[in-house]
Amino acid sequence: MLTTTEVAAARRRAADILADAGIALTPEERDGIEVADFGLSRLEELGLELLVYVNTDRVCAKELVLFPRQTCPEHRHPPFDGTPGKEETFRCRRGLVYLYTEGDRSPAPAAQLADADRGVFTVWREIVLAPGDQHTIPPNTLHWFQAGDEGAIVTEFSTTSRDELDVFTDPRVRRTTVVASRVAPHGSASGRNAG
Amino acid sequence: MLTTTEVAAARRRAADILADAGIALTPEERDGIEVADFGLSRLEELGLELLVYVNTDRVCAKELVLFPRQTCPEHRHPPFDGTPGKEETFRCRRGLVYLYTEGDRSPAPAAQLADADRGVFTVWREIVLAPGDQHTIPPNTLHWFQAGDEGAIVTEFSTTSRDELDVFTDPRVRRTTVVASRVAPHGSASGRNAG
Repeated sequence: MLTTTEVAAARRRAADILADAGIALTPEERDGIEVADFGLSRLEELGLELLVYVNTDRVCAKELVLFPRQTCPEHRHPPFDGTPGKEETFRCRRGLVYLYTEGDRSPAPAAQLADADRGVFTVWREIVLAPGDQHTIPPNTLHWFQAGDEGAIVTEFSTTSRDELDVFTDPRVRRTTVVASRVAPHGSASGRNAG
Repeated sequence: MLTTTEVAAARRRAADILADAGIALTPEERDGIEVADFGLSRLEELGLELLVYVNTDRVCAKELVLFPRQTCPEHRHPPFDGTPGKEETFRCRRGLVYLYTEGDRSPAPAAQLADADRGVFTVWREIVLAPGDQHTIPPNTLHWFQAGDEGAIVTEFSTTSRDELDVFTDPRVRRTTVVASRVAPHGSASGRNAG
């Protein structure tokens, strides 16, 4: 399990990466960045830093920060509550993202994985996203992604996010959140009300 | 009606504003920025420049560019196809945005309107959005917004966008699109496929 100090350091590092990219956050947002190690305690390799902008019962948007070569483990978003499950579009803002999803295996994928992990990554259709590129993952479709050597920032536009329902290929994964995602029926933070 | 030259100039200006903010676009996206004058031929006052990132049958995301004091006229997003209508979250990225929606009238609203237009702006609850601030507009709720003196960039996270269904308070408005919004069942541009 990550220590409080490790989580705080990762959160600060992610906040600095977003600031360097000119992405304005409120102080509360900077403090609320979620650090996900998927219960594997190998954050630098298998992990993700997330800022949830909004997550209503219809729409979700997040900023994802990946440290160099950091990898989000393979998973899918299953149907729930009569919906087909989460549909998500990844848009690369900074760095390179190697995204893998269902389909024909790419001959020479660029992602780097430890040998011990290879068995829990089963989809190998590679989609490379540079800044300005995006790709939409249909619901209930296996996918995983790794940042390139410089790390990456990805904006995610999606339907409602219910992270606790995600199905991971690796049975060791525990999708506990260090900072709970903000979920509100009609959005999160509001602007400054005058009058 | 705007001339082709005017549209091209506004598109280039909006693309430059996004580039200055460090928002990476593909060349196709830069050329596809929509210039909306709402049929009023007063683009500098009443208009909006939009880039649609994605608009599926569930999720939509756009970048909105507003020139200094440019105003998006008052409108609402009505129910359609069994849905409650478009729900949208505005997140300010650059500049200041004066957003007005239903509720108690703010005593000293900051927006500036020509006298001739005042009758077609009926909601005056003011929400001021600075970079990092956001606000969610429920479906079918009247709203309008104006950029401050420096202009603004706003990211919109929403459910499916059907601009042609929008109901404007000003009967003169025609929501024709100069560049059609890209609508695809599973997202728009995809990344670079390797292999």
